[in-house]
Amino acid sequence: MSKLTDVPKRILIGRALRSDKLGETLLPKRIALPVFASDPLSSVAYAPGEVLLVLSVAGVSAYHFSPWIAVAVVVLMFTVVASYRQNVHAYPSGGGDYEVATTNLGPKAGLTVASALLVDYVLTVAVSIASGIENLGSAIPFVVEHKVLCAVAVIVLLTLMNLRGVKESGKLFAIPTYVFVAGVFIMIAWGAYRGLVMGDTMKAPTADYTVRAEHQGLAGFALVFLLLRAFSSGCAALTGVEAISNGVPAFRKPKSKNAASTLALMGALAVTMFCGIIALAMSTHVRMAEKPGEDLLHNGTPLGSGYVQNPVISQVAEAVFGNGSFLFIVLAAATALVLFLAANTAYNGFPLLGSILAQDRYLPRQLHTRGDRLAFSNGIVLLAGAAVLLVVIYGADSTRLIQLYIVGVFVSFTLSQTGMVRHWNRHLATERDPAKRRRMIRSRAINAFGAFFTGLVLVVVLATKFTHGAWVALLGMVIFYGTMTAIRKHYDRVSEEIAAPDEPSDDSVRPSRVHSIVLVSKVHRPTLRALAYAKLMRSDQLEALSISVDPAETKALKEEWERRGINVPLKILDSPYREITRPIIEYVRGLRRESPRDAISVFIPEYVVGHWYEHLLHNQSALRLKGRLLFTPGVMVTSVPYQLESSEAAKKRARRRADWNAPGSVRRGPVSRPKEPSNKS
Amino acid sequence: MSKLTDVPKRILIGRALRSDKLGETLLPKRIALPVFASDPLSSVAYAPGEVLLVLSVAGVSAYHFSPWIAVAVVVLMFTVVASYRQNVHAYPSGGGDYEVATTNLGPKAGLTVASALLVDYVLTVAVSIASGIENLGSAIPFVVEHKVLCAVAVIVLLTLMNLRGVKESGKLFAIPTYVFVAGVFIMIAWGAYRGLVMGDTMKAPTADYTVRAEHQGLAGFALVFLLLRAFSSGCAALTGVEAISNGVPAFRKPKSKNAASTLALMGALAVTMFCGIIALAMSTHVRMAEKPGEDLLHNGTPLGSGYVQNPVISQVAEAVFGNGSFLFIVLAAATALVLFLAANTAYNGFPLLGSILAQDRYLPRQLHTRGDRLAFSNGIVLLAGAAVLLVVIYGADSTRLIQLYIVGVFVSFTLSQTGMVRHWNRHLATERDPAKRRRMIRSRAINAFGAFFTGLVLVVVLATKFTHGAWVALLGMVIFYGTMTAIRKHYDRVSEEIAAPDEPSDDSVRPSRVHSIVLVSKVHRPTLRALAYAKLMRSDQLEALSISVDPAETKALKEEWERRGINVPLKILDSPYREITRPIIEYVRGLRRESPRDAISVFIPEYVVGHWYEHLLHNQSALRLKGRLLFTPGVMVTSVPYQLESSEAAKKRARRRADWNAPGSVRRGPVSRPKEPSNKS
Repeated sequence: MSKLTDVPKRILIGRALRSDKLGETLLPKRIALPVFASDPLSSVAYAPGEVLLVLSVAGVSAYHFSPWIAVAVVVLMFTVVASYRQNVHAYPSGGGDYEVATTNLGPKAGLTVASALLVDYVLTVAVSIASGIENLGSAIPFVVEHKVLCAVAVIVLLTLMNLRGVKESGKLFAIPTYVFVAGVFIMIAWGAYRGLVMGDTMKAPTADYTVRAEHQGLAGFALVFLLLRAFSSGCAALTGVEAISNGVPAFRKPKSKNAASTLALMGALAVTMFCGIIALAMSTHVRMAEKPGEDLLHNGTPLGSGYVQNPVISQVAEAVFGNGSFLFIVLAAATALVLFLAANTAYNGFPLLGSILAQDRYLPRQLHTRGDRLAFSNGIVLLAGAAVLLVVIYGADSTRLIQLYIVGVFVSFTLSQTGMVRHWNRHLATERDPAKRRRMIRSRAINAFGAFFTGLVLVVVLATKFTHGAWVALLGMVIFYGTMTAIRKHYDRVSEEIAAPDEPSDDSVRPSRVHSIVLVSKVHRPTLRALAYAKLMRSDQLEALSISVDPAETKALKEEWERRGINVPLKILDSPYREITRPIIEYVRGLRRESPRDAISVFIPEYVVGHWYEHLLHNQSALRLKGRLLFTPGVMVTSVPYQLESSEAAKKRARRRADWNAPGSVRRGPVSRPKEPSNKS
Repeated sequence: MSKLTDVPKRILIGRALRSDKLGETLLPKRIALPVFASDPLSSVAYAPGEVLLVLSVAGVSAYHFSPWIAVAVVVLMFTVVASYRQNVHAYPSGGGDYEVATTNLGPKAGLTVASALLVDYVLTVAVSIASGIENLGSAIPFVVEHKVLCAVAVIVLLTLMNLRGVKESGKLFAIPTYVFVAGVFIMIAWGAYRGLVMGDTMKAPTADYTVRAEHQGLAGFALVFLLLRAFSSGCAALTGVEAISNGVPAFRKPKSKNAASTLALMGALAVTMFCGIIALAMSTHVRMAEKPGEDLLHNGTPLGSGYVQNPVISQVAEAVFGNGSFLFIVLAAATALVLFLAANTAYNGFPLLGSILAQDRYLPRQLHTRGDRLAFSNGIVLLAGAAVLLVVIYGADSTRLIQLYIVGVFVSFTLSQTGMVRHWNRHLATERDPAKRRRMIRSRAINAFGAFFTGLVLVVVLATKFTHGAWVALLGMVIFYGTMTAIRKHYDRVSEEIAAPDEPSDDSVRPSRVHSIVLVSKVHRPTLRALAYAKLMRSDQLEALSISVDPAETKALKEEWERRGINVPLKILDSPYREITRPIIEYVRGLRRESPRDAISVFIPEYVVGHWYEHLLHNQSALRLKGRLLFTPGVMVTSVPYQLESSEAAKKRARRRADWNAPGSVRRGPVSRPKEPSNKS
């Protein structure tokens, strides 16, 4: 199967895996960490900045609250990580929050979680790409000058890659993620060394600016509200934590234990980086504002609308490493890359969740088929379209997009943790072993605290961000929820309609005989083949049927029929208005009226061609006829294909498509219970 | 079949015709004239103006050549009308220029004519609409200020009307056309009366302007060239003459004689109106320029780019009737309406020619079906798209669009008349009756002169207009020609490939037995029906096949199968990666390998639903599987439909579509040899 053209691809992404070998690709922890954590780790590129941005509303003096907000985020992160370690142990099948909520709280809670996650996948793409573009822009000004264009271009690129089915290997994720993590840690360490040991004064490029407070001297409730808003923005660092709970099956054994340790490691890395960046931002006097053009002043005059505010991480890197230095460039590139990888994770998560939802008949059934290219394509295009829409509407401004973010994540956190509490309650009702009961009670306490805390954060996020954009996210959730409910209702109605009656052979009038009709236009190979096949089927009656649209052609057909001595009666229907479909339908209806207990079998010779434009030149009448025949009761329609030479090309393309590998399979792990494909009857 | 909602439609367009009654709708001459002549008659609304426009390049003094140009156009018109009267008698079947050229000059000439006519249909729409908008604009300034927008809106409106299948009655054409003709004649008569009898000085609104000649004092070759260019533009009055030769079958008997008289009447009306308008324009001192903003001067200063040059017909009407007078408004409205009707004729001609070309396999075969809604839709949308493109590119400027026009018409005139000369030569070779021979020789002389004259005009048009835009029309013709040749080649290749071998039963390996497979996912009504139908077919082997994607579901299926005692063996294929298509294809291939002389029959239960979005929820896997199976040799695929309740709605829609009437059937007349639909075997 290996071809010359495969060589560059093999070099790029490793030897193509036979799908029954997928079981061998389980992830060791050192690869699982970057594969799953690019989303939460990358969020430290924008989360600290958002905190400072919100605080600046009350002036630079409010910046001194930022360590407290960092502490709150750290506590939240520990809570969430601890909670999800319980999930991972209790639900090792990888169903994630949707499974936990559905099992323990019922299908409506599950569907709510699913809607929230779908919205959040869209936002992960939009926010990560916008932020990646901003980070790239701190090194390459062109990018930031054409923000929307570049963001859309990156989304299109990612979409094409995922549609083509580039199978990311773990290494593809590992290198930029580790470079990014190492870069941030080196920055924090070198900054601490320079500041604390050498006593250097490091100055961020914005250190000399002053911030005009929109609300000077905020106090009381207003101040608390502002701090809560800053905290909400900082919570962006939490997104993507649930990814590991979806990916347990992809880990090496012991799966749950390894997943839990990876989760803990990820949490530790994320909070360290988050706090380190906040600390460096404080000591290098980074100044940020929600409206930088108006509210940032240099020597008392506003910087004007032309001013571009660089992300905190790049300002800090500039202060620590120096502008344009090698490490500065490397960190900017790694940051952008890890953010694009984070966006890419949504391209995997969205169709995967879709496939699980399809299994529960909330989405079209065909999405259920694993690695089905068409199903993936639909999901990917939907995701990309929604993300592009958001990016264009919000001008690829990560700060404005973040207002929409997080709602979904915290809906899902809260419901999942609440579900876990129910889970332990149920198990405690039957469990008698005191050691196990102790562990369960401990887990329940963790999950209960997690549910309480994440629920609180959800309320805070909704309260502080609703008018800033969270309503858009809620609207998206409602749309997903409504659509999926409608689809499920449709399937339920149909499944009731088609349920087999309990008494066998209750079906009103069972056909007793079959009358076969072969449609004929000329005597050529496809017709002869259709006739031969129809004869094989030994129906009770067999006739050939032709529509006369041109008397000369009809005459020629009749003569040819006789000359060849074809032993099937040929019936000819006149159609003075050159219609094909109507006379056939009427003829079939007539047959049914005459003998209602007969079934009619219509054989249509069909051409199989290689290109879509060739398809336009053939079979169109047959297709339309078939469409109409399907509405006529008591009819079955048989296509007898005749493969034209040009169909060889299409056959090869189809084979290539069959060898296609779904993107994201690395994260998903093998399907439960992989077996050697075997036939049993 | 009549419904309440049909009442308004019936009032608007008359009682719906059963298509077998189409034969009764033959046209009397008084209706045939407006139905066929709206295109050539309406062109007097722009042709005289184009003549003056071109002459103005040499200054107002050149205007005195315009009567001579009018004379040349009149001679040409008489020649063309006389020539086509011969066509109408010789080819009463309505095949038109394409048939004449193909029969007498061969298929390449025929295809050239067809390409030329297709291009000209597009230009008829673009030019007529642009000119109609300009005429409407002389009464309603808003229209001329938003020319492109309004022109596109009218095209879209016409397109929607034609897609919906509004069946124009003869009266719809008659009223505006007669109002227009009457209006122009009243204008000419009233103008002549005022000028010659009353001695009034009538002044066109532009009479006081002077024209700055781009080339002062042209002489010799340059002057001749300019006069030829002006003549070419005047030839726009000739377009649409060939329409009657396509429409002979729509006339009452004696068809050919009536068509010939209508042709003569149309020619007489057109030249009278053309000359009358030129004469009035001269006597009211209309001033026009190619670049009115620069080259029209008022008291020595240019009028500037804001100036809008009104069409000659409206300037003359203003001079004769007075600006804003009742008759002025009526004439402007009738002119615009008759131009829009002229555009509408192309909407009928384009699909009709397409259907004839499809019959000769230059276009997809399904276009051949008369009154096939889909075929018409494709043609109409293609025509409208091309016209919109031209209108937008050329800013809905009729003067610029006319540069592209006429080339096609004269290509078709010249080839058709040359073909007629051959036609008479062929008949003269066998005809012995001296009286008939005399008539033939006379006809041949007329056609020979027609061929010579129209050929000369074609050369003149190409020489004078090539760089002005005629090259675009030629390019369009080349594209149509190339596409149609390629399609014909494809059909020829396929037809050779599928030609039945002369010895019966030469087909390599004829299948001897048939192995039937019913695809099963669950035991429900559609499955039970498919099983029942498959059993009826009495194949040599019958088994049910299910793909196991979920062990629990498979177990339930097996139990249900046994519980119901279904006497068909159930085979289950494991698919650990949840694929459906691949295991089935491999299984079928395996069966074929084991017994290559067996044919495989695959029965697929299919859901029939009522809405396209419901279709997305069903049958998708079946569809894709079917697509792959068709490439597998030795397989036939049978769809066993199960009509869900919601399919009732779709059935009704399909029935409504079947009752649809093709637009333009009035012009086309009944199909040759209409008969009562009858069955014969």
